[in-house]
Amino acid sequence: MSHSVPEPTSVPWTAVRATLKFDAQGLIPAIAQQYDSGEVLMMAWMNQAALDETLATGRVCYWSRSRGRLWRKGESSGQIQRLKELRLDCDGDTLLLLVDQTGPACHTGRASCFYRAVRGTRVDIIAAPLIDPSVLYKA
Amino acid sequence: MSHSVPEPTSVPWTAVRATLKFDAQGLIPAIAQQYDSGEVLMMAWMNQAALDETLATGRVCYWSRSRGRLWRKGESSGQIQRLKELRLDCDGDTLLLLVDQTGPACHTGRASCFYRAVRGTRVDIIAAPLIDPSVLYKA
Repeated sequence: MSHSVPEPTSVPWTAVRATLKFDAQGLIPAIAQQYDSGEVLMMAWMNQAALDETLATGRVCYWSRSRGRLWRKGESSGQIQRLKELRLDCDGDTLLLLVDQTGPACHTGRASCFYRAVRGTRVDIIAAPLIDPSVLYKA
Repeated sequence: MSHSVPEPTSVPWTAVRATLKFDAQGLIPAIAQQYDSGEVLMMAWMNQAALDETLATGRVCYWSRSRGRLWRKGESSGQIQRLKELRLDCDGDTLLLLVDQTGPACHTGRASCFYRAVRGTRVDIIAAPLIDPSVLYKA
């Protein structure tokens, strides 16, 4: 892109959608951030269908690589994510989802998946579960 | 992991380091977040060497997929990232870097790479460059 031509300040989503860079598996990384606190909750993956569904419904849907299918966040645990705003990075190869997370985002019952901090030569667990995972995932 | 056995609250980094999940290209996604404001700045990739160097020096080093070499953030632009804390997710397949970013993180001169927001049927540019990129990347 030439920097001598000002970028337009608003363009149609349909045009930008066609420029997103999915990887060889058809996936794009999606970072989920709690919209009001700024806490980074998790990172997962979307394919085009997951992204389109998320925008259409306002409820975040990922692509589960381990299960090989669409994964409507909270479908097992009830801990859903409502989309507040979708943001795209400069290269169009990463998504930032501003979400309103119901309960914990992490399958361990913690608010965020990033609960391990490297401090010196140790890794400390810096957050406790909000809910016991056995309650979240009832048999 | 069985949830009936409490997790230890602190473990050696050397033990956790060996459990990190790099992809088939030997890379792991690394999200950079400004440590005090909570702004998500960018997402890039690290290999084991980039991660080890970052922890050893306190200056963030990524792996540039386009250049196929280590990329010490700011080496061209001067806009470096100092690592405040490294966090790991539950699955050990994503890194969260709490950083102190000098100037803009984005090559467009913006504070964050996530300056495009999907709003209705449009994508709006929601941030202006802090510095003209032609000043950042002098010929």
